[in-house]
Parts: sequence; structure tokens; C-alpha cells
Amino acid sequence: MAKDLVSRQENYAQWYNDLVIKADLAENSAVRGCMVIKPYGYAIWEKIQGELDRMFKETGHVNAYFPLFIPKSFFSREAEHVEGFAKECAVVTHYRLKKDESGKGLVVDESAKLEEELIVRPTSETIIWNTYKGWIQSYRDLPILINQWANVVRWEMRTRLFLRTTEFLWQEGHTAHATREEALEETIKMLDVYATFAEKYMALPVIKGVKTESEKFAGAIDTYTIETLMQDGKALQGGTSHFLGQNFARAFDVKFSNREQKLDYVWATSWGVTTRLIGAVIMAHSDDNGLVLPPRLAPIHVVIVPIHKNEEELAFISIKAEEIRKRLTAIGITVKYDNRETHKPGFKFAEYELKGVPVRLAIGPRDIQNGTVELARRDTLEKSVLPAEGIEIVIRDLLEAIQENIYNKAFAFREKNTFRVNTWDEFREVISGTGGFVSAHWDGTAETEARIKEETKATIRCIPFNNPAEYGKCIYSGKPSVQRVIFAVAY
Amino acid sequence: MAKDLVSRQENYAQWYNDLVIKADLAENSAVRGCMVIKPYGYAIWEKIQGELDRMFKETGHVNAYFPLFIPKSFFSREAEHVEGFAKECAVVTHYRLKKDESGKGLVVDESAKLEEELIVRPTSETIIWNTYKGWIQSYRDLPILINQWANVVRWEMRTRLFLRTTEFLWQEGHTAHATREEALEETIKMLDVYATFAEKYMALPVIKGVKTESEKFAGAIDTYTIETLMQDGKALQGGTSHFLGQNFARAFDVKFSNREQKLDYVWATSWGVTTRLIGAVIMAHSDDNGLVLPPRLAPIHVVIVPIHKNEEELAFISIKAEEIRKRLTAIGITVKYDNRETHKPGFKFAEYELKGVPVRLAIGPRDIQNGTVELARRDTLEKSVLPAEGIEIVIRDLLEAIQENIYNKAFAFREKNTFRVNTWDEFREVISGTGGFVSAHWDGTAETEARIKEETKATIRCIPFNNPAEYGKCIYSGKPSVQRVIFAVAY
Repeated sequence: MAKDLVSRQENYAQWYNDLVIKADLAENSAVRGCMVIKPYGYAIWEKIQGELDRMFKETGHVNAYFPLFIPKSFFSREAEHVEGFAKECAVVTHYRLKKDESGKGLVVDESAKLEEELIVRPTSETIIWNTYKGWIQSYRDLPILINQWANVVRWEMRTRLFLRTTEFLWQEGHTAHATREEALEETIKMLDVYATFAEKYMALPVIKGVKTESEKFAGAIDTYTIETLMQDGKALQGGTSHFLGQNFARAFDVKFSNREQKLDYVWATSWGVTTRLIGAVIMAHSDDNGLVLPPRLAPIHVVIVPIHKNEEELAFISIKAEEIRKRLTAIGITVKYDNRETHKPGFKFAEYELKGVPVRLAIGPRDIQNGTVELARRDTLEKSVLPAEGIEIVIRDLLEAIQENIYNKAFAFREKNTFRVNTWDEFREVISGTGGFVSAHWDGTAETEARIKEETKATIRCIPFNNPAEYGKCIYSGKPSVQRVIFAVAY
Repeated sequence: MAKDLVSRQENYAQWYNDLVIKADLAENSAVRGCMVIKPYGYAIWEKIQGELDRMFKETGHVNAYFPLFIPKSFFSREAEHVEGFAKECAVVTHYRLKKDESGKGLVVDESAKLEEELIVRPTSETIIWNTYKGWIQSYRDLPILINQWANVVRWEMRTRLFLRTTEFLWQEGHTAHATREEALEETIKMLDVYATFAEKYMALPVIKGVKTESEKFAGAIDTYTIETLMQDGKALQGGTSHFLGQNFARAFDVKFSNREQKLDYVWATSWGVTTRLIGAVIMAHSDDNGLVLPPRLAPIHVVIVPIHKNEEELAFISIKAEEIRKRLTAIGITVKYDNRETHKPGFKFAEYELKGVPVRLAIGPRDIQNGTVELARRDTLEKSVLPAEGIEIVIRDLLEAIQENIYNKAFAFREKNTFRVNTWDEFREVISGTGGFVSAHWDGTAETEARIKEETKATIRCIPFNNPAEYGKCIYSGKPSVQRVIFAVAY
């Protein structure tokens, strides 16, 4: 199976797309730009959801659900927001179909035209702040700490499975606060939750920072981001947390009486991550043999493959395999015993390599005699023969080691592919060559930023937190600069 | 708070709506027919999801995700399906907005008109079977046992929170099988899962049965249902499981080579339950003081309210309360300690009664002296003073007893409100009087069924499983009948 994958070296984009398809993660649907997330891909999303949901709840958040549709007029209320989203909106105009004149096909029933069109949510700030208006009168009603798991639609012309699709799944947090300080604190707290999740579960090191004016969320005062680096040297924005100030409260007239009994607008944040995280996990860790999944997000931790010549051997092996499966399951490890008679062991080995199962156990007749199993780890492809006795403890520790190793590998890759450059020539050379994160001086103007993007496709990914002040000259304009920022070509 | 509820006797519909709003479960949104599910209501949905998802996985199903949008032409492929859904479809016709001529408002960009309109899914058989076509070649690819958690839209003119909304949340299972027998077995298996869930978790007794031709799902061969009875004598369909035969496989040309290497169409089932289950739980068990939640679906099991005159007393009580909270949490019981200084105990008592928290503990200074707590159970409103020592075991057992008591009460109510009638006069008297399930003879024709519905609003809820053969005369037409069926006015 894996033989059919083109190498990353040869064609990274093709490698990624083929891998998503062949590993049964997702596929394109009959609806342009929308994907079908297949069970194996969705199982990874369930792992992501489970951990994030727990982390959100531990930080005091609760879930709720707001409408899929947003009245068109709501968008016009926040000027920057409408600029950002109007051009990619799916618009519902009618609420009924009828048979056409031939009586066979279907046409839109013109008598069922909506008075005001409805937009399929591209994000929910507007409908949520319109709702919060009814919930908030006093500082006693604050804070509101709500998250929503939902689907959203942003009409995209060029789509790629998981990374950019017209419909995608995500979570969106929307919080309301009595003070600027509290809202800012929340914005950073949730960015930290994302960073912890990326590093601990996705095994992905991140750069935390703030977006420039040009790159921030439409309607935010500031957008904070976690930026990650893929194996082809492109950056991928992993999650964003927005400090919205009082913008949406103003747009939807949400005032509260504060402790001093004065009316003030409510302070807001919003933050989200999407199914593109699955794309990031795939792109960051996988190799030419297929997926490499961090154990903490792997739907199956261990696969057991029997090596047998006849039914009698299979029967013996199955007893042992089931016994090991039970011992592993008892300590929270997910195991699949693949005793299909329709496929040879070699085929199965390739299949689970392609699917990124972290640990593979093979058991043959000699293993039964010797009380051993053959263990292969997916990340390094190393094999070893070990005693079956106590194997569950070995595997428990190994899964932790694999998780750590995958992170360390990604960290080393990022270190190797982060460059400090001081001239425009160097900049262009790196960006058009190996790619990677480029730390360079920038004069702080949107104009320079736009020109650099136009000439090289590189964008400012973020101004990192705790960035040291450093005087220098903008690599593009030569004008004075007070700090380096992180550039990269991004997904 | 509860004082503001009108009694069920006085106005059941108003009581229900007020209760949903006042208990903070949901509210109407700015979008006609769409609701906002508030955190307390959503927490009940999360409990429902958690248990059902576990039950689906235990019966071999996996989750996946299919597109929100369905190309219009897909609907025309299955004749009955299109009849059933065309009249209530939200239709996406454009993918962009632009500024109007004044530059302030937004209008639909006519240059961004879709070639083929997209329907917001009212149910996903069509898009899923179009996808399955690519997944199934041979009997080896079967069965496919997939479930999806999603939002769907059916345009409704008259909506009621949870019970009937334009957008609602649900799960939809869609399975594919090699044989008719296997698909039928799956249909019944999933109906049984729903029945078990309703009885064990929702504390609601159900009648399992099959729908008549007029009442079945548009596109199904047979629809199986669980029917429940609400306190106003109306029925509520709790969940349905459809045997789809080869209808959708034919419509989307999904063939497979069977074990005999002959081509055949694939057999299908689909099954779903929705957020209306929350409405059923509310309507079935609650009383004039507010919600009564079955412990297994209650977001909070126990609330602890301190009774104190000053801060010193509160400090003592809090130590005790936190200690009890820890002991309860350790055995999986969810506890809220409400030490708000802004509200009096009486207010809090009324609030948690309204919100249906199954057990309330009150702790005052005398309890600290005596080593006691005052315990009140929501279902019976009984109070007792008990030793604080070992209270967690008492409560654990009590929660089980409450769950059982709520079920028994609902069961007794249904028994009392199920009537065998033999004449049209009796039938009309019951239906227009107390309501309830009416077991009566029917001549088996759609015509009679339609007339009865027209004259009394009663529909045939189902033909129960294991229905005894019994010769009789149709209560409406007087024609011969071979069995009784269950009538009721339904939500």
C-alpha cells in the first residue's frame, strides 16, 4: 500500500493528499470544497475534541449551541468583520423547493423567498453578541465563559483536505468580561491552552505571538496565535485567540452596569481551533511510509498481527494475542487484533504503517514456544523481540517515549529550519529555498508587509512573545526597526 | 422564581415554554425557528450524547462526518424522499455578499450565483449513499456501521423549543449491509438501543412498534419507533429506526458483488434521535415547581446550600461542605456548592428546585454541632435530617432510587392513561378528554387513518411489536380488523 505514496522530497503536496486518502482519513465530497471525514480521521478529531473539551472545562468554560444561520444585517454592524467575511459567505435565500414543470426535477420555489437572507455562519461573534445582549445587565452577570463545538462555512476557491475546506468543524470560545484586563487575561489563557495542547498532545512545538494589523481577525483589537512549522518549511497557524475589546459589544449595544454602577460596554474574547489541526499532525510527523501519529491522538495504540501457516497455529496465537490485548486494555491502551484471514502479514504491516499505529506486535509459532513477541515502533521503524510477560508495562512506557521522540524530532526540525537573516538577498534565498521560519527586521508598516508578501509569498506569522528589543534595519525597506518578527510562507 | 410558573393544569403549553426559559435551558434566537441551547440545556445534551455514543460504539459503530450541503439534484433521485423533504428545505443559492450601492448595507452578489443550488441537509441519506458508492465493491466492504453527530435544518412554520425547531441537533446512523436479514436485524438492534436508553437514562417507558405507511420515513420500507407519553396525554415520538431496503442503493446505484459473485444492490438502515429528547425529559417528569431531572441525565446531582447568619458561620459550614463535596466527587457524583452571598437560602432552594437538581443538602450551624445535614429530594420534595458521616453512600443509593422512582411514576402514568376502546364515541371522548394512548381496531387503510386524523388530530403512533392477533371492527369504518393499533394526539 505505502508503495503507492510519492515521497515528500518528490512532491510534498501530492504526498500529503495521497496520504490523507490512502490512510482513510478523509476524501473530497460531491459538494465542491466540502470533505467527508472518514471514521479513522474522525477518530483523531474525537481525541482532539475530548482533550480540548476537558481543558476548556478545567479552565471554567461551559458548552452551548447557537444557530447555524445569521441574519445578513448582523454582518454590517461591525465594519471590519463584514469586510473580512462578506466575500466568502454561503447565502440561504429560499426555504422551499417544488417540482419543475416537467414534474420530475426540482426547482427553487420563488414564492418561498426569505425577506432577509440568512448567512451560514463563517464564525459566530455576531449572532452570539446579539444573544448576549439579553443575558447581560450587570457585572454580576459576568464573566460569561462559553464554548461551542460546531461546523462553519467559508467559501473557498482552492481547497485542500483538512487544511482549507469550505465547511470545517471547529470550536469557538466566546467570552464576555467586565474589564479590559480580565478579557486580556482570558485571551492569553486560552492561547496557552492551545499551546499546551499542541505541544503535549500533537507533539508540535509552537511559537506564541501576536499578529500584525494586516493578519489579525476581522473585528479584533489583537489576535494571538500559535505558529507551527511543517516538514516542507511552510508555517501552519495552529490556533488563534482574539482580544475583541469592546468592538462587538458596541456593534450589538451590549452594556452593563459596573461595580461603580456606571454603564459600560462589555469586553470580549473569542478563540478557535479547527479540523485543520488534523492536517498539521499529518504534515508535521509523517514519513514516506505513511502516517506517524503521536500516541496521545492515535485512535489505535497497538495492533497485534498473527503470523501463522495454518488454522491450528492461528488458534494458539489467538489465545496469546487475546490475553495480551486484555492486559493492555486494562491499563487504558487501545488495541486492535487483526486476525483477518483474507490478508497476509506483510500486507497488514504496510497497512498499519500507512495508518500510523504507534506500536505493532507480531506473534508467530516460535514466539509462543519462547514466550516472546516481536515489537515494532512506527516512529523509528525499529524492531525487537521481547518477553511477552510484562509487555504491557514496556508498551505503556514506550508510548510515552514515542510521544516524546516525535515531539523532539519536530522540535529539532524547527530549530534547524529557523533562520536569522539580515539582508533582503538572504531573506529571498531562504524563503525560496528551504523555507522555514525567518526571523528578520521589519519596519512596522503594512505597506512593506504587503510588498514582501507580493514578492515572496511570505507573511509575518507573528511578533513573538518576549521578543527582545533589538535595533536594526528592515530587510526590505532599510528603515529602522526595533525588533525581529517571524516570517514564513504559510498554509 | 418557581412562583412565576403557571401550573400544568392551567396551561400545559405555557408551563412548558416558561419552564424551558426560566430553568435556563434554551431560548428563541434572532433567527426565526432556531433556538439557542443555553449551557444548562446543552449539558443535558452532552449527557445524552455521551451515553448514546458509548452504546453505539459498544454495538460496533464508528463516527464520521459528511457535508452540511446536499446538491439539489440528489433529492430527486429517491421519489418518496423528495416528496417528504422538498417543502421544508433551506436553499443556498449564492456564495458571496457585496456592499450595496450606498456602501453601507450588504446585498447578495448576483455574480456569485451557484450553478446548482445546495440544500442544507434535512437528513443525510442522499449525500451518504452517494459517498458509499465509492466505498463498496464487494461483500468484503460490508457492513458499514457509521453514525454522525450533526445539525440539520427542516423549515418549520410553527416551532417550539426543543420539540420542533428549524435547526436541531441529532445523530443519524447510516448502515450498509450485504443482506436483507442483516439490515433488518440492525434496524431492530438500534431501536432496542433507543428503547434501553429511554428507559434507563431518560426514565421513560416506551412502546416499540412499526409505523403505518402514512407515518413512515420518506424513503423507508419500514419505520420502527419508540413512542412515549407526556403528562398532558400527548404522545411524543422518541426515536426512529428505518429499514430502507435497497431504495437508496438503487437511487444512487450502489451495487456490490455478493458471496456468490453476483451483483446486487446494498441493503440500508438509518436511525436517529434529536435534541427533542430534552423536551421529552422535561415534559414527562417535571412538576409545577420546575424541572425534575432523572439523575443519570442531570448536569448537577447534588447542590449544597449553606445556611448562615454571618461570615464566621459560613467559614465553618464551608469546611464541612467542601469535605462532603470531595467525598461525593470521589465516587463520581457531580456537586455544586453554592456559597453566593448575594442570594438567600430560600431563593437558592427555589432556584435548584426549578432547575431539577435531584438532591439538595442544606447545612446550618446546628448541623455542624450535631454532625448532620438536611437532605431534600427533588422528585418527592421530602426532607430528612441525616448524619453527615457516610452521607455519600446514602446519596449514591438515593440517586438510584430517584432514577427508579421517576421511571415508576412515568410508567404508572402511562398505564393509567392507556385505554382500550371499542367504539368511535369512546375514542373521541378519550382523545378530546384526557388524551393518552388509545388502543383500538383499525381497518388498515390510509383513508380511514387520514379521516381519523382530520376529525380528531389523533394519529396512529405505531403497531406495537408482539401485538396479539385479535379480530374486531374498525372504530371508524366498522370494517373488519385483525389487530389493535395505538392512537394518540402527538407532538
